Amino acid sequence: MKRIDDFKSIIDHYEIIFFDAFGVIKNYKGLLPGIEKTFRYLKEQGKEYYVVTNDASRSPAQLAASYHEMGLDAITADRIISSGMLTKEYLDLKVDEGIVAYLGTKSSAHYIDSEGLHTLPVSSIDESNIDKVNALAFLDDEGFDWCNDLNKTVNLLRKRAIPAIVANTDHAYPLNINDIAIAIGGVASMIETIVGKKFIRFGKPDSQMFMFAYDLIREYRSINKKQIVMVGDTLQTDILGGNKFGLDTVLVLSGNTRSADAENRINATGILPTYICDSAVIGPIELDL
Amino acid sequence: MKRIDDFKSIIDHYEIIFFDAFGVIKNYKGLLPGIEKTFRYLKEQGKEYYVVTNDASRSPAQLAASYHEMGLDAITADRIISSGMLTKEYLDLKVDEGIVAYLGTKSSAHYIDSEGLHTLPVSSIDESNIDKVNALAFLDDEGFDWCNDLNKTVNLLRKRAIPAIVANTDHAYPLNINDIAIAIGGVASMIETIVGKKFIRFGKPDSQMFMFAYDLIREYRSINKKQIVMVGDTLQTDILGGNKFGLDTVLVLSGNTRSADAENRINATGILPTYICDSAVIGPIELDL
Amino acid sequence: MKRIDDFKSIIDHYEIIFFDAFGVIKNYKGLLPGIEKTFRYLKEQGKEYYVVTNDASRSPAQLAASYHEMGLDAITADRIISSGMLTKEYLDLKVDEGIVAYLGTKSSAHYIDSEGLHTLPVSSIDESNIDKVNALAFLDDEGFDWCNDLNKTVNLLRKRAIPAIVANTDHAYPLNINDIAIAIGGVASMIETIVGKKFIRFGKPDSQMFMFAYDLIREYRSINKKQIVMVGDTLQTDILGGNKFGLDTVLVLSGNTRSADAENRINATGILPTYICDSAVIGPIELDL
Amino acid sequence: MKRIDDFKSIIDHYEIIFFDAFGVIKNYKGLLPGIEKTFRYLKEQGKEYYVVTNDASRSPAQLAASYHEMGLDAITADRIISSGMLTKEYLDLKVDEGIVAYLGTKSSAHYIDSEGLHTLPVSSIDESNIDKVNALAFLDDEGFDWCNDLNKTVNLLRKRAIPAIVANTDHAYPLNINDIAIAIGGVASMIETIVGKKFIRFGKPDSQMFMFAYDLIREYRSINKKQIVMVGDTLQTDILGGNKFGLDTVLVLSGNTRSADAENRINATGILPTYICDSAVIGPIELDL
Repeated sequence: MKRIDDFKSIIDHYEIIFFDAFGVIKNYKGLLPGIEKTFRYLKEQGKEYYVVTNDASRSPAQLAASYHEMGLDAITADRIISSGMLTKEYLDLKVDEGIVAYLGTKSSAHYIDSEGLHTLPVSSIDESNIDKVNALAFLDDEGFDWCNDLNKTVNLLRKRAIPAIVANTDHAYPLNINDIAIAIGGVASMIETIVGKKFIRFGKPDSQMFMFAYDLIREYRSINKKQIVMVGDTLQTDILGGNKFGLDTVLVLSGNTRSADAENRINATGILPTYICDSAVIGPIELDL
Repeated sequence: MKRIDDFKSIIDHYEIIFFDAFGVIKNYKGLLPGIEKTFRYLKEQGKEYYVVTNDASRSPAQLAASYHEMGLDAITADRIISSGMLTKEYLDLKVDEGIVAYLGTKSSAHYIDSEGLHTLPVSSIDESNIDKVNALAFLDDEGFDWCNDLNKTVNLLRKRAIPAIVANTDHAYPLNINDIAIAIGGVASMIETIVGKKFIRFGKPDSQMFMFAYDLIREYRSINKKQIVMVGDTLQTDILGGNKFGLDTVLVLSGNTRSADAENRINATGILPTYICDSAVIGPIELDL
Repeated sequence: MKRIDDFKSIIDHYEIIFFDAFGVIKNYKGLLPGIEKTFRYLKEQGKEYYVVTNDASRSPAQLAASYHEMGLDAITADRIISSGMLTKEYLDLKVDEGIVAYLGTKSSAHYIDSEGLHTLPVSSIDESNIDKVNALAFLDDEGFDWCNDLNKTVNLLRKRAIPAIVANTDHAYPLNINDIAIAIGGVASMIETIVGKKFIRFGKPDSQMFMFAYDLIREYRSINKKQIVMVGDTLQTDILGGNKFGLDTVLVLSGNTRSADAENRINATGILPTYICDSAVIGPIELDL
Repeated sequence: MKRIDDFKSIIDHYEIIFFDAFGVIKNYKGLLPGIEKTFRYLKEQGKEYYVVTNDASRSPAQLAASYHEMGLDAITADRIISSGMLTKEYLDLKVDEGIVAYLGTKSSAHYIDSEGLHTLPVSSIDESNIDKVNALAFLDDEGFDWCNDLNKTVNLLRKRAIPAIVANTDHAYPLNINDIAIAIGGVASMIETIVGKKFIRFGKPDSQMFMFAYDLIREYRSINKKQIVMVGDTLQTDILGGNKFGLDTVLVLSGNTRSADAENRINATGILPTYICDSAVIGPIELDL
């Protein structure tokens, strides 16, 4: 574990950089100040990069659009690997027809809709269509009535033997500097305990997220895991997942893990990043490169 | 483990009977048909009885009134031991002053209100009173906005180092023959996981429920645990808790545990009732006693 | 939560003091230097005290003898409440006859032996006697072959539907200033997960430990929970258990919880002692009392 | 979910078959009678097959040799994907130098030994070499003294901030028709709870096992997940893992899941195989093919 002062020296050692989104590239206020320098340098140096994010609330195209609105054009839809993409792949491979009931916004459901399979909010499931429901997806913490629709979800899973897919493993997410919000992954865990069934979860630290990105790269170039580094602000997802997949990892202190706590948390959890760095923003001297 | 045909023979062997409420005395339709015969027989034989229930939604007086409305006068307030009573005792002993924030109905909060300590729904906590909040109580699954108030609860517990009391350990409860509902105990477990703190839980199978009843009895008579039997429909709460406290136990098949599953569930969980009996209703021959 | 400089002022506010043993009265080196002054003062002031300990390795008489050998005569057998006593009470109440298979030393088993019920180490269970085994007790981490006897225990519990009692809830205990050892409670949790059954656990933080002590006291005097304080070095057992039972609690920093970590751990766990005090040793000024 | 009478019709629908080993190809008595017919048919039809097994006790070469000894030549080392291989890959990628301490047999350690990294049993770790230990691997339940070496492992992980790798996620394995044995995965979970750190686990149901096989295939041919089927006897590992990776799955009833329980367990767990089939042995009519 090495303390690195400038993120630039990390970029210089790898061919491909995987970034977590929240707490690394952006936070609740918008883009991390100066992060565009990092992406400019990546382009100049001909390095590849991907955003690997536990986010199923929107499609990669919509996620990319939100970066462009904030002024970061470097992140295009094909650079984004989201847990929503894994959910879509699972449904395409494993559920041939019928209805996917979901908890989330219409926008989150639109992305996983397909020809053979159409989505319906849990609130619209009733006697007339319950027998056609062939999967349930937990997509987003917004867009539904918690009390009514969570109770309805419990009973749907007791009546129908269908797979339940959790498209975001996070239990909570930061809302602003003081507050957090319960994420759909936390809600799904409560339902899972109550119905006593085993849900299918997509998202870091699970390897499947990293594998999806790795596979995308290999379609156009040969690559070795030694040439990739994962950058994240959360030990339990970004760093644990990156390590397990065999990647080098960088813990940045611009999000969930505060500088004062980093060492304690690393020792307490036994999750060891390869490097620790203040942020993914490259320093002032590199600016004129 | 013995199969008993008539509940009457169980009554005959003990001095004091503890009953679970839901699935034993009543269900979602009302009183269990014939259960009044059991209480008539108990009175005739001079046996004592208590209802030991994971219910903090109402006071013992209100719970008793609901039995009277259904036509069962035998269950008076002094015969009811609820997890709400333990919550009230905890607050009286451990929280001297200030506000108890709560999730639940006004009725559930009214019971735990006291001179020094007043209750306020989580929805009414704001900047002006948050510093006076000295405890949080999870009382009932109704009476609040799940999305807003659960998120507010998470952040309250992150800002204030206060005890969180869960007045009902159940994760779900039956709503009708087909459906269940998420109980406040299930909601509390989700919040506990998210904030990473340790909550204080009252309710079966915890021994404190049984101890509370046992203490009440000893105030007016001497008693030995061998003279008490616990009757319940749920292995994980009624039977496990009764066993651990050292009581003999009866699993009745009129509620959560169906006749066809009883043996399998007993073997799978290793929770062994002393007796199994169809229900706590005494048979037709005993009627004319 | 108040910082208290001298433990004497705590004694002065209560009628009865419950002490945890390890980390409070003694440690791996022997008695805590000066602790005899505390017990001298308790006697002078006519205060009652009990040692409430998660220890099933020896009988209360043997535990008391070990204090006497170290030079502390104040702790007699009738002052000790151990999780082994609860195990013995459970077996007396709930298992009428046959064999109690056990993991532990002969000495730990001797204490729970009784007229109707005799104990046999798991290693001695075979085809000839397995059908008479009516309970299994996890007593101590010593006295058996871990690999052979733990595997034998797993299969015993798969073949016989019997209660499994864990006489010590601790997962580990300190061996010296650097090392800890796996406790029988940790071993029991592994077996419980593998066989998928529900074990019965005795020991702090469970209320039954406190209730046992409380009951003993009430046999000879009337008492109110407000008059008792629990002193311990471990948040998850001593303080959580004492709080839940309704007692005031003192966290001492002479054992598991180091001074530097105390505040962090209290905030992280949400387990709040009434007081924090360096140790249960009373200060130099009180010496000449 | 379809009931399939003859495994042959499953083979006919896929290009590549993944087999679990224990309970599918072999059991504690040796090869499953008739299983060689299945592999003969696979060869005749030009189908590919892989054995995907949670086994880190031996190298693929040694595992293959054991099949040859039993008379099944079709399973060669290059057809075996074991959790031990993932452990080896992890160590090669993530631990550059020093010692890997291990729990297991010499044979299990030999396989993960490499030029830069040498292995040492936990029993040989002492003051002189503890600072060079850069990883810990849980390889096999045999080859060490459980009591001494597990306690030593706990303290090693408290002293050194190193990754701990669990090379087999199973908690138990069948020993014969009546008995099971505790697997190294069960032991590792106990240690993980005691030290409070996060271990890295390789083995089904984790996707990385399937990905490793999938990657091997893609080195010599193009493939689509729709063309692969996973065959296993255990819902929680083979079927859950196969499903999540996006494969069709077959539950066979020749191992962990008995015919009488299959439907109940599928409903209880919500883990849904694509097909259920008595065994992977193809029926008598196909014999003369």
